[in-house]
Amino acid sequence: MENGISQAVIARLPRYFRYLGELNDSGVERISSKELSEIMKVTASQIRQDLNHFGGFGQQGYGYNVDYLCKEIGKILGLDRTHHLIIIGAGNLGSALANYMNFEKRGFLFKGIFDRNPELIGKKIHHMSVKPMNELPDFIRENGIDIAVLTIPKEGAVSVADILVSSGIRGIWNFAHVDLNVPPHVQVENVHLSDSLMKLSFNIIENT
Amino acid sequence: MENGISQAVIARLPRYFRYLGELNDSGVERISSKELSEIMKVTASQIRQDLNHFGGFGQQGYGYNVDYLCKEIGKILGLDRTHHLIIIGAGNLGSALANYMNFEKRGFLFKGIFDRNPELIGKKIHHMSVKPMNELPDFIRENGIDIAVLTIPKEGAVSVADILVSSGIRGIWNFAHVDLNVPPHVQVENVHLSDSLMKLSFNIIENT
Repeated sequence: MENGISQAVIARLPRYFRYLGELNDSGVERISSKELSEIMKVTASQIRQDLNHFGGFGQQGYGYNVDYLCKEIGKILGLDRTHHLIIIGAGNLGSALANYMNFEKRGFLFKGIFDRNPELIGKKIHHMSVKPMNELPDFIRENGIDIAVLTIPKEGAVSVADILVSSGIRGIWNFAHVDLNVPPHVQVENVHLSDSLMKLSFNIIENT
Repeated sequence: MENGISQAVIARLPRYFRYLGELNDSGVERISSKELSEIMKVTASQIRQDLNHFGGFGQQGYGYNVDYLCKEIGKILGLDRTHHLIIIGAGNLGSALANYMNFEKRGFLFKGIFDRNPELIGKKIHHMSVKPMNELPDFIRENGIDIAVLTIPKEGAVSVADILVSSGIRGIWNFAHVDLNVPPHVQVENVHLSDSLMKLSFNIIENT
């Protein structure tokens, strides 16, 4: 079913998933593209185009089956599978993400946290003891870890990414303020917080 | 100078700013679009097109003046000005962002942190005492706060956003997992972490 879905549609899927999940949780069974467009502030035509990729579930005058559509989008996003995730960097941001893990209900299981600072080794974060970096490669292999969350300063991020790649990681969720160069079979999703704050700054000034 | 710069170019500016800033810090004075394209992994033609908006600083065979270009992009992004910023939500993520404030060197000054949990009031976070929510409107007005960082659960985010807007906030950096509806003179920059993690999940599966 992935075939023929453009990257632009893919980028919008998490937002559909979020809204449909909330509707589902509120007990809504069906919704028209018009109603959904009013909630999501996008055009009904955009919604129909995007959701047409998921088959003919939006019959005229009948609406979308919320639960079905939500599950189908979840499958496309891989949320019906389990990911095993570790955090590299037990500082404030790493701790925040570890504790923020209602990601777990989406199948992202938090399996360990690592840091190079000897003073942090053994510290408990979200029921996990911080482990030293030299245990990283074996831990990834032995526990089938597929995702690493990088919350370390940019200085160390590139060399840690190399270790992650050579240990078989599949994806890096990168909060380090640097772009990583990894082979094409490894996926990187960047969260460059400073870039985001600069965009906000630009938009404030542009609208002054 | 903002005139005629498309949103697509704007979205790329923070990344140029980051790379040029690093080059500047390393003492590089001039760089050609070809060299920059190799470092940034985008085409030299894209770089020339983007940076042409900033005047004729990329003479053939002469390259860009790194310091000048960096400063000009910084001005466009509003980084030559001072922003006064507060954080709403003194949980793990709010604390992480407060402590992560090397944003300060970009002119984003951290002025206060608020929470509705009585147990957190008075707690010190990055040299600031957590304040109660009822002090929020006056604090924004009296301290010329222009940016609020929202790191609270989605349930409370919409009503807090209303308070922020009516107190005169100019921008909201929104980490709450909900889209906010604010008037057009208020800018919102979303950091939806779950959406980002879902995109990573999709890309891992797509490339399996």
